[in-house]
Amino acid sequence: MAARRKPLAVVLLSGGLDSATAGACAKRDGFALLALTVAYGQRHLREVESARRVARALRVREHLVVRAPLDHFAASALTDRAIKVPRGRSARAIGRGIPVTYVPARNAVLLALAAAFAEARGARAVYIGATAVDYSGYPDCRPAFLKAFERALALGTKAGVEGRPIRIKAPLVSKTKADIVRLAVRLRVPLALTWSCYLGAPLACGRCDSCLLRLKGFREAGLTDPVVYRRGPRRALRP
Amino acid sequence: MAARRKPLAVVLLSGGLDSATAGACAKRDGFALLALTVAYGQRHLREVESARRVARALRVREHLVVRAPLDHFAASALTDRAIKVPRGRSARAIGRGIPVTYVPARNAVLLALAAAFAEARGARAVYIGATAVDYSGYPDCRPAFLKAFERALALGTKAGVEGRPIRIKAPLVSKTKADIVRLAVRLRVPLALTWSCYLGAPLACGRCDSCLLRLKGFREAGLTDPVVYRRGPRRALRP
Repeated sequence: MAARRKPLAVVLLSGGLDSATAGACAKRDGFALLALTVAYGQRHLREVESARRVARALRVREHLVVRAPLDHFAASALTDRAIKVPRGRSARAIGRGIPVTYVPARNAVLLALAAAFAEARGARAVYIGATAVDYSGYPDCRPAFLKAFERALALGTKAGVEGRPIRIKAPLVSKTKADIVRLAVRLRVPLALTWSCYLGAPLACGRCDSCLLRLKGFREAGLTDPVVYRRGPRRALRP
Repeated sequence: MAARRKPLAVVLLSGGLDSATAGACAKRDGFALLALTVAYGQRHLREVESARRVARALRVREHLVVRAPLDHFAASALTDRAIKVPRGRSARAIGRGIPVTYVPARNAVLLALAAAFAEARGARAVYIGATAVDYSGYPDCRPAFLKAFERALALGTKAGVEGRPIRIKAPLVSKTKADIVRLAVRLRVPLALTWSCYLGAPLACGRCDSCLLRLKGFREAGLTDPVVYRRGPRRALRP
């Protein structure tokens, strides 16, 4: 048994639909999983609990929950309660510009921490659930950024200069939310355990950008979201 | 007075000679300073206290001391007490290979946090005291890495995509330690307040790589280091 040990990958596991699916993709790609959850002062700390459950379901070898101080800098609706999270926006409004939920340099911080974890454990890849299709408003979810960051790591880590560069994998980056929902179902992602809502309430609000896009994804995939929302039956996202 | 407000720069201030001098360079370059000190579980937490004093002396507008969880990943002599910090090495031994004091992806994490702080405050540049001459063993101090990281930030931050990319400035990167000491004196860096020793003892050890390189720099610059060392009169770094 266990003829050859599987290579390791770190997945950045927020507890949401996308990161859980990215973790399942890493397993599909033949990696044994390490999971990193970063509490960065986000309102929706609730997702950390989801991350723990998803990590268990994905049978990760090691799950670290660490703190990063992005809330010390603020300037985002996700980390500063003085800035309101938009609700009930149309798909068009969501697609326009960089939203107030953008957290300065967030994915640079998350990827750097994941790379540190990966390098310390000899992992070959970092998986991130970034997606740039339905929601291209976040510059740090775009393929060009992820590629540039991978290149920086190749130059600036011991692993990189010794010829074992850490790869950044974003298997969902060019998928729609509906594609991601379908893929998640195929890979048996425990969807009921995931949490996407930006707000920290006990039930998902169903109205923030993240809930609306998630619901749109399930609707377009012809599936029912197992997560319980505050307002009963799901309303469609306005076009 | 105060006809135009000065542009802002974030300096990564560890409390050591190099970062203090980098901060002084930012002031020389016309920036008002924000300072970021990252406690990442390093043995030499003593340097955080030095950073506070240096920040005051540099009259920074805002100094944040934040925590980053690099010690959760370990795999470095600076964050894991099970790994010994080398002492009494020769200059040649120090120059060879990547030392055990390398912290996986450390500067990627520090620069990402500094970029987050910079973007949140509208700062235009991040100053880092990285140096690649006397001590080229750290891949994340090399110009190619810093350049690649700057490029990733230009692509992955709101500031970058809106045409105000955050610049990464490493004014010491091609200077010898002796050059840095001379520059520090010229820019009136409070050298007595800085702390370079890798160990956490009340007095600098005078024997770790960092102390040895610092002492070599002062000696070559023909100056006396105002920091107090454990073993009385400074011994020269063996060639």
